[in-house]
Amino acid sequence: MIKVSVFYPNGAGAKFDMAYYLATHIPLVRQKLGGACKGIAVDQGIAGGSPGAPPTYMASGHLLFNSVEEFQSAFTPHAASIMGDIPNFASVQPIIQLSEVKL
Amino acid sequence: MIKVSVFYPNGAGAKFDMAYYLATHIPLVRQKLGGACKGIAVDQGIAGGSPGAPPTYMASGHLLFNSVEEFQSAFTPHAASIMGDIPNFASVQPIIQLSEVKL
Repeated sequence: MIKVSVFYPNGAGAKFDMAYYLATHIPLVRQKLGGACKGIAVDQGIAGGSPGAPPTYMASGHLLFNSVEEFQSAFTPHAASIMGDIPNFASVQPIIQLSEVKL
Repeated sequence: MIKVSVFYPNGAGAKFDMAYYLATHIPLVRQKLGGACKGIAVDQGIAGGSPGAPPTYMASGHLLFNSVEEFQSAFTPHAASIMGDIPNFASVQPIIQLSEVKL
């Protein structure tokens, strides 16, 4: 199983609309990716690791797929509409990472 | 539910021993945190979001707790032994983030 993580960096003035993300963006992603996407998780940053430290990421979304190939096949045809929705809820560009789920 | 994420940054010469992490560190964490820890996930970085880009993180671990307070109560008495094991498998200091699980 692979995980596509989309991290929205925190920073001065950075904004993230979690209500829009959950109500509009995630359903859009789910609809466009279809059955290739085996699961979706969403985290909202609370704090960093040191007392009083802010979170590194305002929010992150994590999508599960059977393989990198299945992710690419599902995502590529819809990349423009999915990525084009980002300015509707985030003032920053996300960091994207592909990982293998080990546990 | 809250998630404590521990991200190990990638970089020139950075090393991470996934075999040790899975066989020794995660069982240590599980034993020390006991029942307060409701779940553990481990990701191994494969790639970044652009073609040919390296992953931002070599690996990450994610621990679930009912609340920040339950995490702190479980972790604080064992912080030294858990954090002290990190040099046994990683050549870098991790970035730690607390998040609220929204989905």
